[in-house]
Amino acid sequence: MSPLLKPIQYAEASAEVRAVYDDIMTLRRSDWINDFWKVLAHDPATLRRTWEAAKQVMAPGALDPLTKELLYIAVSATNNCDYCIYSHTAAARAKGMTDAMLTEVMAVVGLANQTNRLANGYRIPPDERFKPKS
Amino acid sequence: MSPLLKPIQYAEASAEVRAVYDDIMTLRRSDWINDFWKVLAHDPATLRRTWEAAKQVMAPGALDPLTKELLYIAVSATNNCDYCIYSHTAAARAKGMTDAMLTEVMAVVGLANQTNRLANGYRIPPDERFKPKS
Amino acid sequence: MSPLLKPIQYAEASAEVRAVYDDIMTLRRSDWINDFWKVLAHDPATLRRTWEAAKQVMAPGALDPLTKELLYIAVSATNNCDYCIYSHTAAARAKGMTDAMLTEVMAVVGLANQTNRLANGYRIPPDERFKPKS
Amino acid sequence: MSPLLKPIQYAEASAEVRAVYDDIMTLRRSDWINDFWKVLAHDPATLRRTWEAAKQVMAPGALDPLTKELLYIAVSATNNCDYCIYSHTAAARAKGMTDAMLTEVMAVVGLANQTNRLANGYRIPPDERFKPKS
Amino acid sequence: MSPLLKPIQYAEASAEVRAVYDDIMTLRRSDWINDFWKVLAHDPATLRRTWEAAKQVMAPGALDPLTKELLYIAVSATNNCDYCIYSHTAAARAKGMTDAMLTEVMAVVGLANQTNRLANGYRIPPDERFKPKS
Amino acid sequence: MSPLLKPIQYAEASAEVRAVYDDIMTLRRSDWINDFWKVLAHDPATLRRTWEAAKQVMAPGALDPLTKELLYIAVSATNNCDYCIYSHTAAARAKGMTDAMLTEVMAVVGLANQTNRLANGYRIPPDERFKPKS
Repeated sequence: MSPLLKPIQYAEASAEVRAVYDDIMTLRRSDWINDFWKVLAHDPATLRRTWEAAKQVMAPGALDPLTKELLYIAVSATNNCDYCIYSHTAAARAKGMTDAMLTEVMAVVGLANQTNRLANGYRIPPDERFKPKS
Repeated sequence: MSPLLKPIQYAEASAEVRAVYDDIMTLRRSDWINDFWKVLAHDPATLRRTWEAAKQVMAPGALDPLTKELLYIAVSATNNCDYCIYSHTAAARAKGMTDAMLTEVMAVVGLANQTNRLANGYRIPPDERFKPKS
Repeated sequence: MSPLLKPIQYAEASAEVRAVYDDIMTLRRSDWINDFWKVLAHDPATLRRTWEAAKQVMAPGALDPLTKELLYIAVSATNNCDYCIYSHTAAARAKGMTDAMLTEVMAVVGLANQTNRLANGYRIPPDERFKPKS
Repeated sequence: MSPLLKPIQYAEASAEVRAVYDDIMTLRRSDWINDFWKVLAHDPATLRRTWEAAKQVMAPGALDPLTKELLYIAVSATNNCDYCIYSHTAAARAKGMTDAMLTEVMAVVGLANQTNRLANGYRIPPDERFKPKS
Repeated sequence: MSPLLKPIQYAEASAEVRAVYDDIMTLRRSDWINDFWKVLAHDPATLRRTWEAAKQVMAPGALDPLTKELLYIAVSATNNCDYCIYSHTAAARAKGMTDAMLTEVMAVVGLANQTNRLANGYRIPPDERFKPKS
Repeated sequence: MSPLLKPIQYAEASAEVRAVYDDIMTLRRSDWINDFWKVLAHDPATLRRTWEAAKQVMAPGALDPLTKELLYIAVSATNNCDYCIYSHTAAARAKGMTDAMLTEVMAVVGLANQTNRLANGYRIPPDERFKPKS
C-alpha cells in the first residue's frame, strides 16, 4: 500500500503545518509524528481541523480517554480501517488496555455486527417502549 | 416497516422457544420479551445461540456492562441499525448512561467514521511502530 | 419515505421507457411494474442497463434462480436495503423459498457479519494454504 | 498485516483451547488449524462460542452446505473481509464450487450492491405488495 | 423514527448554542434551523465543531459548492443516510442540481458500488502503474 | 493479495473476450489492459456488461467526466476499495485532477461519513421541508 500523497516531513513543512506538528508533539510529549497527520498536511485546513477535533473529542469528559479509545477501535474494526485499528490499538494499550479488554471489545463488535444484520435483515420495527419519550 | 416473519408470542411458542423466553425474563426480572427475540424464535436454534451469546458477551468481565452497551451503540450507529440503536440506548440508559455520555459516544463515532475514510481513502500504511511486536 | 423522483407511470412514459416496461411485464407474465423501475425511468439509459443486467445475472446458469435470490437477500440484509429486502424476499418466496430457508440465510448472514469483523478487527492474515495457486 | 494478537499454537494452548482445536480437527478430518481460531483462542469463551455457532449454522439443513458457503462469500465480498473471502472460497471449492459458480456469485454480489444503493439513494418506499401479510 | 434526543429550539437554547444558530441563519440568509443542528445542540462543542467543519469543507475552493454537494449525496447514498440524502439533495437543488445531474450521480454511485465489490471480492491487486510514484 | 482467479492475458483469451479488450484499448488509445478486466474475463458476459456500463455511465453528460471520477473516488474511499481508489485516482489525474481537488474530495468524504453517522445514530427524522414535493 502506498499513500496517494507522500507524507510531508517536518523539515519540508510550511509554518502552518509545523504549528500543528508542534502541537501534536507537545500534547503527546513525543518527538514523533505519525504518517496520518503527515499525509493530511497536504491540506493544512483539514490537518488543523481534524487535529483540533481529535483533541476535543478524545479528551476526558463524561467518558474517560480509554473508553473513548475502545469505542474508536470498535468503529474501526467494523469499518475495516487498517491504519486506525493499529494506531488506536496502540493508543489504547498506552492508556492501559489489556488483552482481556481487547478481546471483550472484539466480542461485542462481533455480536453487534451479527445482531445488527439480523434486526435489519428481518426488518424488525423497534418496540415502542424502547423509543425515547418526547 | 413490517417484519419478514411475525413475532411469535409466548402463548403460541413451542416448549423449546418458551425455555429461552423464560430465561430472558428471569435474567431481566421482567415479564416482557422484545420483538427481536420473538422474530428469531422462528429458528429456535438461532434464538438460543444468539441469546446465549448475548448473555455471555454482555456480562461483566474486564469491561463493565455499561461500557459494553456503549460499544454496542457505537457499532449500531455506524451500521445504521434502527432496532439496535433504540434497544441498546434503552439498555444503556437503564445501566446509567447519561445524555453527556451518549453525546460523547456519538462524537467518537462521528470522528472515527471520518478518520477511517481519510486513512483508507488516502491508503496510508500503518506506521511500523503501531504494529504489535511478534 | 418519499422517493427523490416520482415514479413514472406507464401512461406518462416515453416510448423508450415503455419498451422496458413491456419487457419487464412480458418476462414476468404480469401487468404490474414495481416502483424501483418507475423511479429509474427518469434516466432511461440506466433503466435499460439495470434491467438488462438483472435479466442476465439472475437467469439460470451454474446457479439456479432461487440460490441467486438468496444471495441477493444476503447482500441486501448486510447493506440494510429496505426496498431490496422486501422485493427479493417476495421474489424468493415466488421461487420456492420456505421460512426455514429464509432463517438459514439470515443465520449465515449474521455469522458472516460477525466473523468478518473478528477477522478484520484482529487483522489476521489469510493462511497461505487458503490462497489460490497461481 | 500482522495480527493484533499472536496465534496460539496447540503446544502452548490451555486444555480448554485444545478441546476446541481437537473438535475442529476431528470434524474436518485434518491435523491443521487455521489462524482465525488460533487468534480467537486468546478468549477461550469466544473461541468456543464462535466455533459452536459455525458448526451449527453451516451444517446441512434447509440449505445445503455449499449454498451456505456461497452466501458466506457474498457477505464477505460485500464487507471486504480479506481473511473470510480466502478461507470461505477455499471451503466452497472443497465442497464443489466451480469457477462458473464463483463468477455467478460475484455477478449477483455486484448487481445487488448496485441496486441496493439505487433503491436506498433514491429513497424508494417498498411497494405494498412486497410486504409480508400479517 | 424519533430522535434519541429532542431538538433544542432557539427559545430554550443556551447563549453558546444560540451563537451557532445565529451563524447558521446568517450564512444561509434564513430564519430556519434544521433539526440536525438542533439535536447536536445537546453537545455544544460538537455542534460548533461540526458546523465550523461544514462551513470550511463545503466552501468554494478547488471544487465548486455544487460539486461538493454531489459528492455528499454520493457518500450518503452509499451509506444509506436518510437524513443526509434528503438534506443534501435539497441543498444541491438550491445550488442548481437538475434531475439529469441527480440521475448521473446515482448511476455513478451504483456502478462504483458494484465494481468496488467485484474488485474487493476477487481480491484483485492494483496494477503497479496505478500506484503514485514516490 | 492474490486474485481468486488469474488474469486472462490477451494471447490466451477467447474471441468474445478479445472483442472487449480491443474495445477497451481503442477507447483508451492504449495497448494496455488493467487487471480488473482480465479477472472479469473469466465471465465474458459480466466482462462485457460491466465494460458497457462503465462506458455509458462515465461518458460526458449532465456531469463532465472528471466530476464523475471524483464521485467514483468518493464512493471507493467510503467503501475501502483498494483497487478502485488507485485506478480511479489515476483516471482522475489523467483528466486533470489536482492535489487540491483530491484533498477537497477527501475532506467532503470525511465530513459526510461523520455526519451520516451522527444523523443515523441519533435517528433524526428528515425535516419536512427537505422532502421532495409530490
